[in-house]
This record gives sequence, C-alpha cells and structure tokens, in this order.
Amino acid sequence: MARTPTPDDKFSFGLWTVGWAAQDQFGQATRPALDPTEYLPHLAEAGAWGVTFHDDDVVPFGADDATREKGFADFKKAADAAGLTIEMVTTNLFSHPVFKDGGFTANDRSVRRFGLRKVIRNVDLAASLGATTFVMWGGREGSEYDGAKDVNAALDRYREGVDTVAAYIKSQGYDLKIALEPKPNEPRGDILLPTVGHALGFIAELEHGDIVGLNPETGHEQMAGLNYTHGIAQALWAGKLFHIDLNGQRSIKYDQDLVFGHGDLLSAFFTVDLIENGFPGGGPTYDGPRHFDYKPSRTEGFEGVWDSARANMETYLLLAEKARAYRADPEVQAALEASGVFELSQPTLAEGESLADLLADRSAFEDFDADASGERNAGFVRLNQLAIRHLIG
Amino acid sequence: MARTPTPDDKFSFGLWTVGWAAQDQFGQATRPALDPTEYLPHLAEAGAWGVTFHDDDVVPFGADDATREKGFADFKKAADAAGLTIEMVTTNLFSHPVFKDGGFTANDRSVRRFGLRKVIRNVDLAASLGATTFVMWGGREGSEYDGAKDVNAALDRYREGVDTVAAYIKSQGYDLKIALEPKPNEPRGDILLPTVGHALGFIAELEHGDIVGLNPETGHEQMAGLNYTHGIAQALWAGKLFHIDLNGQRSIKYDQDLVFGHGDLLSAFFTVDLIENGFPGGGPTYDGPRHFDYKPSRTEGFEGVWDSARANMETYLLLAEKARAYRADPEVQAALEASGVFELSQPTLAEGESLADLLADRSAFEDFDADASGERNAGFVRLNQLAIRHLIG
Amino acid sequence: MARTPTPDDKFSFGLWTVGWAAQDQFGQATRPALDPTEYLPHLAEAGAWGVTFHDDDVVPFGADDATREKGFADFKKAADAAGLTIEMVTTNLFSHPVFKDGGFTANDRSVRRFGLRKVIRNVDLAASLGATTFVMWGGREGSEYDGAKDVNAALDRYREGVDTVAAYIKSQGYDLKIALEPKPNEPRGDILLPTVGHALGFIAELEHGDIVGLNPETGHEQMAGLNYTHGIAQALWAGKLFHIDLNGQRSIKYDQDLVFGHGDLLSAFFTVDLIENGFPGGGPTYDGPRHFDYKPSRTEGFEGVWDSARANMETYLLLAEKARAYRADPEVQAALEASGVFELSQPTLAEGESLADLLADRSAFEDFDADASGERNAGFVRLNQLAIRHLIG
Amino acid sequence: MARTPTPDDKFSFGLWTVGWAAQDQFGQATRPALDPTEYLPHLAEAGAWGVTFHDDDVVPFGADDATREKGFADFKKAADAAGLTIEMVTTNLFSHPVFKDGGFTANDRSVRRFGLRKVIRNVDLAASLGATTFVMWGGREGSEYDGAKDVNAALDRYREGVDTVAAYIKSQGYDLKIALEPKPNEPRGDILLPTVGHALGFIAELEHGDIVGLNPETGHEQMAGLNYTHGIAQALWAGKLFHIDLNGQRSIKYDQDLVFGHGDLLSAFFTVDLIENGFPGGGPTYDGPRHFDYKPSRTEGFEGVWDSARANMETYLLLAEKARAYRADPEVQAALEASGVFELSQPTLAEGESLADLLADRSAFEDFDADASGERNAGFVRLNQLAIRHLIG
Repeated sequence: MARTPTPDDKFSFGLWTVGWAAQDQFGQATRPALDPTEYLPHLAEAGAWGVTFHDDDVVPFGADDATREKGFADFKKAADAAGLTIEMVTTNLFSHPVFKDGGFTANDRSVRRFGLRKVIRNVDLAASLGATTFVMWGGREGSEYDGAKDVNAALDRYREGVDTVAAYIKSQGYDLKIALEPKPNEPRGDILLPTVGHALGFIAELEHGDIVGLNPETGHEQMAGLNYTHGIAQALWAGKLFHIDLNGQRSIKYDQDLVFGHGDLLSAFFTVDLIENGFPGGGPTYDGPRHFDYKPSRTEGFEGVWDSARANMETYLLLAEKARAYRADPEVQAALEASGVFELSQPTLAEGESLADLLADRSAFEDFDADASGERNAGFVRLNQLAIRHLIG
Repeated sequence: MARTPTPDDKFSFGLWTVGWAAQDQFGQATRPALDPTEYLPHLAEAGAWGVTFHDDDVVPFGADDATREKGFADFKKAADAAGLTIEMVTTNLFSHPVFKDGGFTANDRSVRRFGLRKVIRNVDLAASLGATTFVMWGGREGSEYDGAKDVNAALDRYREGVDTVAAYIKSQGYDLKIALEPKPNEPRGDILLPTVGHALGFIAELEHGDIVGLNPETGHEQMAGLNYTHGIAQALWAGKLFHIDLNGQRSIKYDQDLVFGHGDLLSAFFTVDLIENGFPGGGPTYDGPRHFDYKPSRTEGFEGVWDSARANMETYLLLAEKARAYRADPEVQAALEASGVFELSQPTLAEGESLADLLADRSAFEDFDADASGERNAGFVRLNQLAIRHLIG
Repeated sequence: MARTPTPDDKFSFGLWTVGWAAQDQFGQATRPALDPTEYLPHLAEAGAWGVTFHDDDVVPFGADDATREKGFADFKKAADAAGLTIEMVTTNLFSHPVFKDGGFTANDRSVRRFGLRKVIRNVDLAASLGATTFVMWGGREGSEYDGAKDVNAALDRYREGVDTVAAYIKSQGYDLKIALEPKPNEPRGDILLPTVGHALGFIAELEHGDIVGLNPETGHEQMAGLNYTHGIAQALWAGKLFHIDLNGQRSIKYDQDLVFGHGDLLSAFFTVDLIENGFPGGGPTYDGPRHFDYKPSRTEGFEGVWDSARANMETYLLLAEKARAYRADPEVQAALEASGVFELSQPTLAEGESLADLLADRSAFEDFDADASGERNAGFVRLNQLAIRHLIG
Repeated sequence: MARTPTPDDKFSFGLWTVGWAAQDQFGQATRPALDPTEYLPHLAEAGAWGVTFHDDDVVPFGADDATREKGFADFKKAADAAGLTIEMVTTNLFSHPVFKDGGFTANDRSVRRFGLRKVIRNVDLAASLGATTFVMWGGREGSEYDGAKDVNAALDRYREGVDTVAAYIKSQGYDLKIALEPKPNEPRGDILLPTVGHALGFIAELEHGDIVGLNPETGHEQMAGLNYTHGIAQALWAGKLFHIDLNGQRSIKYDQDLVFGHGDLLSAFFTVDLIENGFPGGGPTYDGPRHFDYKPSRTEGFEGVWDSARANMETYLLLAEKARAYRADPEVQAALEASGVFELSQPTLAEGESLADLLADRSAFEDFDADASGERNAGFVRLNQLAIRHLIG
C-alpha cells in the first residue's frame, strides 16, 4: 500500500464522480443521489485536497435564484468545513434536452445565447468561490451526420463563445483560466475539438487564447487510440496544460471512466513520470491539481464508491514512487544516455551554425555513413524493460 | 459510369501508389517495379493531371550525383511528354534504416542533420521541377515506448527542422508551401503530430508557419476513429488546407490505403461535397489538386493497378455529381434550413450587441423556455436520409 | 425514393427503438415515453410487418400479475388491430440494478435464480403471443475487471441457463427458437460471448444447441472492427442465423444504433446482397424477419422518430434493388467468374480424389508454377468498383 | 529482476521472432538475416526451452529436395546441440505471391491444391522432428472486398483443408495436434476466423475437430478490442487451448508484436495468473509451452534482439511471481469470496433441483427482494485494486 495522501498531493475529484448514481445507457441508477454536501467529508477523509463540480451537480437546472444561492452557499460552507478547495468549476451544457445539439455550436441561435448566458453566470460563480480553472467540455458540440453541421460556422461560433467568455473573465479581473476538454465522440457521433491537438489548433485562432488552455482526460485521448502522455506533452510544450483529468480506459470503446491505473497501467506510469519528474531533458512542467474524473463502477455500493476514490490516489502515489526510483536509478540514466534520449535536447544546428554552414558540412551528408548509422542498436526495448522492472520488479 | 476525367479535374497520383510492388509486412512483392517513367503514360491515359513522388521513388537512396541528375531529368522529360504536372514533391525519411528512429526527431543528432540535408536537397529539386507543394509525412517521428522519447525535445527539434526548411524556401524565393501529413501510428507505435489537430497546434508554434499547412489523408484520420471531413473542415477554417490525400479505410486497423470510396462511402460523399461545394454557409474553400494516396491491392496485377487508379477518379466524379444534385435539390435546401444548418452562420451575439446587452436580454435566459426548445425536432435524420437517397436512390 | 414497404418485406422493429425516450449516458430524455400501444399504429402505417419487445418495455419491472396480464393483453390487442406480427420477444436482464453483474452469470446465485425465473416466465409469454424467436442479449454478462469473474464458471452458468431454457421450450412443445445476440462491450467493459464467433463456439457446447442460434447485430460486430457480412455468413454456414438486428455504426466507438445504412454504407450493401440474393455459389439462406434495432437520434422529436423508422426500410429497399441489379448484371457475373468467386465452390480435392491421389499429382505441386500463379491479376478491385458503380452510378 | 528462466518454464520462441530482419511496410530491413541455426545457441543461452518455425524460415520457398533435407537436418542438429526442443512447426501460406488470396481458401483451386500439398509435406516434417503442435495461421485467408469472396464456400474449403490435414495426421499415427491461430485483419482487410470465438465455432463443424484446437495470440485478440484472458478462458472451457502466442499490443491498431507485458500490462498479469494458477474455482488448465510470438523493434540491433527475447521471459516470470502472491494473499481470498467469485461455481439449480422445483420456489422470485439485491456492494473495484497493489505495490 502507498502512503496516505495529503493536501500537498493536490488530489482533486469532480463531485460528479463519487456522486454518480450509476445510471447508464442500458440501466437504471444503482445508488441513490445524496445531497451534494454529503460527499465532501468523505472525500476529505480519503485524502482529497480539492473538489470540482458542474453547476447542475450542486443546484438543479432551472432552480430559482434563491434555491441556487442557498445551494452554492451551503456547498461552499460544507467544502470549507471539510477543508476542501474548490479549485475548478465547469458548466453543464450537455444534460438538459435544450443542449441536445450543443451549447456554443447548436444550430439554433437561441440555444447558443442561452448556453452563453449559463456559462457567464457560472464564471461569476467560479470566481466567487475562488476557483482558478474553468473547464469547458463541449460534449454535445458535434454531430452524428456530416450534412447536419456546417463545421466552419460551428468553429466560428465556438470561437465566438470562448472568446466572449475569456474577454468577460479579463474584463472582470477574475483570476481564472479556461481549460478546454477534448473528446472524440460520445455522446455525439463526432465531437468538435476531438483531441488535444484539435483544441490546441483551435486556441491558436482565438483572440483571447492567452487564458485558454487544456484539460486533457486520459480516457478521452485513448478512445481515439492516442497516447495520453504524448498528448499532455504537446500541451505542455505549447504552454497550454492548464489542468488534467486522470482516469482509466481499456482500449478503444465507450467512455469507461475507470479508476486511474485500472486501464493502461504502463501508460499511467509514464503519465505520472512526466507529471512528477518532468521531461528527461527539462522544459515546461505541470504544477496544477491531480484531478480525477472517473466513475465508481455501477456494480458498487457506497463502500465501493469510497474504495474507488481512494484507489485513484493510491495508484497515483504508488506510480509516483516507482517513477522517482526509475529516474534516480543510475542504470536507467545510463540507458537513457545510451539511447540518445538526452541528445534530443541538442539542437540539430549547433549554436551559431547557419543552414549554409550545415549545407557546407560534408560530414553531415556527403561523408555520412547512413548504412552504419542504421545498424546502431537504439536500446529502446531494454530501456522499456527497465521501466517494467521498476514497475513490477 | 462517370464521365472521363480531364486535366481540369486536377486528379493527381503519387508515383508510389501505382508503383507499389505490393510487398507488405507479411509477404513479398507480387508485382515487378518498373522504371519510374513507365508509369507516367498510363496515368495520363487514365485521366490524371498530376504526379507526385518521394525522392527515392525516382532515384534510389544513395545514388551518386550523376545518376540522380539523370534520373530526375528523365522523369521530368517523361512527365512533360505525358502531359503530367509535377505538383508536389516529398522526401522519404522513413524507408532507409538510418531513419528508423525518425528524421527530424531522431534521438541521434547526426541522423537529424543528415535528414535535414536530404530534405533541403529535395526542396531545391521540388522548386526546380515546378512543384508548388512540399509534403512532409513524418512517419518515423515517434516512438513505441514512452520512455524512449523526450516529446518536448522532439517537438523542439521538429519545429527547428520545419522552420529551417520554411526559412530556406523563403530565402530562395521558391513558390513552394509545406504541407504536413499527420498519422496516428504505423510504422511507429505512436507518431508525433498524430492528427490534423496536433499538426495545426504545432504549426501555430512555428516562426515560419505562414507557409506551413496540412496534407490530411482520409485513412490516417480514420485510423484514429476521427471524421475526415471534420478534419479537413478545421484545416480549412484555420486557413491551412494546402493539399489532400484521398483514399479508403475500413474502420480502425492497419493503414489500408484502399481506393477512394472503397472505405467509408457515406463519409467520402460528404468529403467530396465539401471539396466541390464548400460549406453550406460559405467560407474558405479548397482549390488544390485532388490527390490520391492509395495502394493497388496486393492481389492485383498491372491490369488491376490501372483499374484501381481509374476507380479513384471514377468514384470521385460519381460522388461529385451526386453532391451537386444534393445541394441543388430544393428539398435538401429546405431541410438544411429547417435543421438550422444555415442559422449556425449567424453570430450568437447580434451585430453590435455587446455581452452586456446579452446579459440584459431576458428573452435569452430568464424568459427562455428551455424545455420547449429541447423538444424541437432537429430533423437531422431526415436530412441524412436525403443524402442517402441522392447517393443510392 | 424506394417503393413503399409491404408486409411481404418482413420489416420488423423493436418497440424499444421508436420507444426510446432518448436518455443517454450524459443526458436526460428528450422525448416522452408514450403508452406502448401508441407506437404500433405508427409502425404499421410506416410499413412494418412485425414488432418485438422486452418484457419491461410493455409492463414495468415488478408490476403485479394483474397489471402484467392486462398490459400484455392490451398490447397484443393493439398489435392485432394494427396488423403487426409479434415475431420475437426478449427478456430484459440488464436495466434493473439487480442485474448489474449479469443475469445468467451473476456471481450472486440468487440473482441467477431470479433471472432464470424472469426468462422462463417470458418464454411462456413469447409462446402465448405466437412469437417464434426468443432473443437473449446478455448485455450485463461480463466484467470490467479480470479478477472479478471466473470465466470458466461463468460459461458453465451461461450454458446451464441457456440449456435450461431450451429444455423448457422443448418440454412445453413451444414453436420457439433461441437466438443469442453477441456484443463485445458496453455496458460492461468486456461482455461474454463478444462476437458471432464466440456465440457459435458456445452453442456447440450446449446440450440443446439444436434450437439455439444467433441474432447478430450490425453495429455490435463493427464495434469490434469485424465484418458484419462475414459474421452472418459464418452463422449461416453453421446453420445458426436465426434472426438479425440491422442498424448503423460508424467505426469502433460507443454503440451508436444508427439507422441501417447510416453507418458503413458499402458494407450495408453487401449485407443486403447476402440476405436477398444468397451466396454467389449457393448454400444456406436467410428467410427470417428484417429486424431493425436502432435508436432515433436524441436530437429528434417524434417527427424524427418516424422519419428514422421509415429511413431504415427505405434504405434497405434501395439497397435490395441495387443488389438485385448488381447480381443480374452480366458484367458483374463475368467479373465474379474472372475473379474465381464461383471457383471457390469447387472442392479442393476432386470428387473421388483421395489425399493420396493429390500427393501423387505432380501438377499440383512439383510441376506447379507458383511464381506464374502469383502474378495473376485477381481482379478484386475492379469487381468492387462494379459494386460502387451499381450503388452510386 | 526475475530469476533466470529454466527449461522447466517451457519458454519457447518462434525462429521468425528473433530472426525478423525488421523490414516493415514502410521500410527496409535494419538487421541482416543470419543463418537459421545461428539464432539457436543465443535462444538457449537466454533461457529458452523450445523453438518453433515456419518451413520457409529454415529453408527458402522453392528450394530443391536436397537443399531442403540438408537445411532441416542442420537445423535439427543445431537445435539438439543447443538443447532446444522443436515443440511446434507451422507452414508459411502467406509470404509468397502465390498465396496472395490465401492458401486453403484461395479462389483459385490450383493454389488451394498447392497449399494443401505444402502443408502436408510440412506435417510430415513436424512429426519427424518430434513437434507435438502444428499451428495454422491463415493470415491470407480473407478479403478486402465483400464481393470478392463467397464466405460460405470459403468456410467449406477451409473445413475441407483442415479436415484433410487432420485425417492425414491420424492416418499416419502422428502425435500431433493442430492449433488454429485467429487474427481479425492484416495483412487482409478481413481475415476469416477473426477471433478465438470464430475459430471455436469453426472447429465445432469439423469431422476431425478432436485434434484441432487453438493457438490464440495476445495482440490478435486485442486488435479487435477483445479481452485476451477471456479469449483463452473460453478456449480452455471448450477444451481447445492447445498452444499460446504471448506478446504485447497497445490498443487497436496495426499488429505490433511487442514484448509480452510491453502492451497492456494489467491484462498480461491476469493472463499469467490464469495460465499459472488456473481459474479461481478450478477447471481446465493449460500445461503447454509459454510461446512468444513477438518482434524485436526495428530500431534495435542484435543486442536489442537478445535484450527483447530475455525481456519476454523476465516479464513473464515477474508476473508469475506476483500472481502467485496475489492468489496466496488471505486478503485477496477474502475479497474474492466477498465478491462472489467462488459462488459462481455453484450451479444455479441445486443438485437434484429441477426447473419445476425452481419455478415452485417463491424465495427465488415472488419473494425475492430485487431492489435490495441491486444495492449490494459487489466489491469489484476493491478487488482490482488489490491486484494493482500486488503488481506495483
């Protein structure tokens, strides 16, 4: 077993994770929905530092202002009492039927206006509660049928929406950043901004992209068969890893939202290695919350809910310990060196070397022995086996 | 049968498509490799307008300068004789063992220097032959093992490489644009810049990104379960659709490179609809070559090679005809209108409307009947069925 | 547009298809649930011949006997009034929390006993209503975690359950066959009997397997990247294609349940070609209902529900027409001949030829020119292009 | 590090694994092909007990009889000298162009006759070398285009071929069993007998199916998103797990053939747990070779080849040790008990209980509290976390 998590670990949970009543596409809820505040002491006791939520997780859609204010005030009070930080808030633009064709990119303009209003209201709430990240998962922004969505117009509207929210945040002086959460599909056949990459490309087209980044989720990238660690690496490289959603997924299928590490375990090891230890050659690092976005399996009662919440943190801590030992191991360092992993940080052109210099360097091309180079043993398999040894040895 | 293709159709083929000798991972070549020039009259006769190639398709890797010059001169002569335009050229940084860990992002710096030199040499060639697009498929830029690649350093090197090439193109005054070709995996376990989105995000970080765009391939996006038409739509939206690679893929599996339309036919219809007719609400359009990057199945002899080359063009023309009729059909136009497809082009905020105005508009939120809105019939299934009727009716 | 469907077309719909209120994993219902009988006249008017249901679709789980009897009686009356045949009945062993770990293979024996009782009760109902097929989709028979399910014991229990039901059917003299419906995953992480093949292998181990066959669903096989037409072909070959579930799926992702043909259209063409025209070389054929198991998209109101129901039948009829013309086309027949498609029906050993004879036949091996044979043009691409021409030409 | 493997571990390698020269679909060989015998001392030194091969791995296709005899004699001698058991032999029906449309199911009858002859010749060889398993991977038995293959006829021919071979084995009195190796796709678009299940269903239709079983490969099942451990479990249940191919695969993509455990590590743990410790409730077990069918990555030289060969065995041994401790842990045993894993071995009907008895048992249905049952905590997540703790704790 791993050590007990502490607030310094910055473990955070979505309220909708432990609060999921376990209704799925093919079956009814197997657990009752408790009052939102009831989950908080349990989370704190399990070792969590933070909690996050969608507006509708705490106060039902369509509640009147008084109910709403009381609901959030009670929740804030309960979070404070439990010692939990509300580090992120997000808006639900996907559950109510009004959003069945999306929020910011619904064909119906009145829906988009309604969605934008709902988000702005929630941004105010997020700021008032001290959250520093505002996540946007556009789960209904997409289509099942190519003919039903003008993707150019949709991206224009998406940009309009995000830029409007970002400008509002700036205008209010909120200490809040937006983090987009990509997903390839489900519940729509194809979701817009399906991967970390598409969101990065989108952000580059924003007017207020400086406060817009990413909240990549393990399982979402893996649902497209993509390497999650590579995904957060590119986000870090672009200065856009604002938040993370850790969980587990087994291959390309429906969104499983398993406990972190209960999916692709070797991949989870390298994810933690990157988050905890950074890139081998240095560079940008992630210092934000370790946020879990998972679902306690539908087979579980509340005992299983809390077992699963703890399992996320335990697995993370176990992997973090392994990753530290892996990096500290002289044999691993030597293997990284031998495999050229550090050499990749050396620019291809030497300092001060121009392309003309390279073109004149016969050793680089005319006299380079490509065949001999091609025979070199890269040592990648051995390096990976060293990771396996650290992980399970 | 469709009409015979003409040069105005701008159909173009990679030399490596019809020239593939059909050796695959599990078996030997089933067709002989002809002299590169021999394919050209056949392509022209079949109706192609353009031809493209990797350096090593025409002249073997490591050939001496005299052989190289003669090889390309002969090829250019043969292309001219056949009336084929050399519209794009690309560099092979993936077949020779020296590139087994990549070209621009190989851990080994000497390989990167060699690769950069090979590309620069090929850029000169491309310009000299009048090509206007220079494609870069980084098929070996990636890894099988997360520990073996510092992705931050790799993206730094990738940027260094592409920026160096782009700066060179500008410095030489070449009328040439770079088009990156994403692919999620195969031959590497995970390839860097795995999707259209990742490449767009990457380009946004370049110094010379203005002349760098995309060459998305149908099957490559579909290998990640992504919607190809959405992919080229986002590339168009970002002003980055510089070239396209059309082919066929059946679900998520190895790279099939089937004839265009022999994969997901309904998706191919909407791809052609977008290329030929643009977005329903207007916006950026694609006017470049219709380039096929496919492989004649290994079961086929040369007869099948030419049948398959023709099949790409025939299918494209059949779909183009259907797509024109689809768009021209008043019933389709009415259905698009009813489904709000055109309405998505209307900004969410009215012209001159500020966010403050929206916040003050009670009809947008306080008085908006979300439940009633959620009951509206979107009409998307009917719209899709109209496409089916046009396609097979 | 296709001709209007007639009862001779044997189109049949699950009540749960048009009756789906459109609640999904991430959102609430967008349509009200009508009284079960209300759907029937609409289905009949649209051209359906049959209707099918789960017990709980018509009468709520846990209803008392009087409610239950009245519910089914009313439904039968309404079906008769509408002229709809109740051709298949199935039991819901997946929605209620009691079945969260399965029905026949739940670890908890009391759940298995309850599930078996529920099925037996439903078999009596099916027989009393004149249904001839009893479908079993074991959607919850499976696991998320390998350690939590003893698969050997689970298959023992699955066999015990199915054999018990089959024996009961025989003992009662019911004119009823069981059809197992495979699915790889969702709602469980891994479902037992995940494909047509696994179910065929399972049936071979049954005592009463003679009345147990398959009900393969298009999307379920495609969720594993498998070829649906090949799947029903192997089921036919084994004499086990008892029923079919037609719908649409786009690549490997969550279970989409799109309209038939709105997924992989080319594959749908060959599915219909097989159902309508049989194998090219003859052999077993399917003569049962053309049953649709799809979901009207969540974006649609009731108008869209009926549009989508009609779309299934229309697409089927359009494809059937195309398939007939394809088979009747002399050019296609010649191409099938040239590609050796008919030759595959010739046994490898001639009539009366023993293996010893083959071993003595030098023309078969010693004198066989393998290289020349390997150069033959198979003509498969051309043949496929003929299908494309028929489909969209 | 794990202990050194010994012959008692029964680790076995395909000659084509370490002997792969690393030519792939997109690149040339990076390693030379040594004389077949040269690999053997290295394998033995690394700790292997057995070696297996395709005919063409040892003696080139088309070699004359003298060359052939000498080649196999030399190989046998070298294997003996190295102390390696030739436990399995298989026939290459996929590399030479003659088999481009398959061996046993090629449309061209002369190819089928040639293929059958090649197999029979190889069966004699296998028997003469003392192999006890004869694997058949029908990698080219399939199609890219549904119209090009009559699947009913193909399965007839497949059956004819396998039955002919099996009858021959019996007639010769060879101590040899046939093991079919399923694969969903690659190199064909769709391969016949794509999964463990389809092969089980096929075997059930054979005349001589008693000596025909399966050789399931980890990555092949995972290429269809299927659970490999479930696959071998069903094969065991059916008495058909004759041989295994262990390797690694990361999600649904091209066939990666990674080192065992370098793919889905948690799944590999449960695979080893099943092989070493059997089902929790007892039942059939596997006692055959632990055979690795992997490819040393193309980036590696010969040093990496041997590192990777050792890595397979090391990972297996590490997992075996963990699995033993997992099963022996009283906390795990208690958790298995609490989760009902052992309870699944109890028949649903008690010994001597008839269905009539069950129907009369009101406690099973009428008086059963389904709602209360549905609230039970299954404890599956906790059980899985115990496995994680054993694996990485």
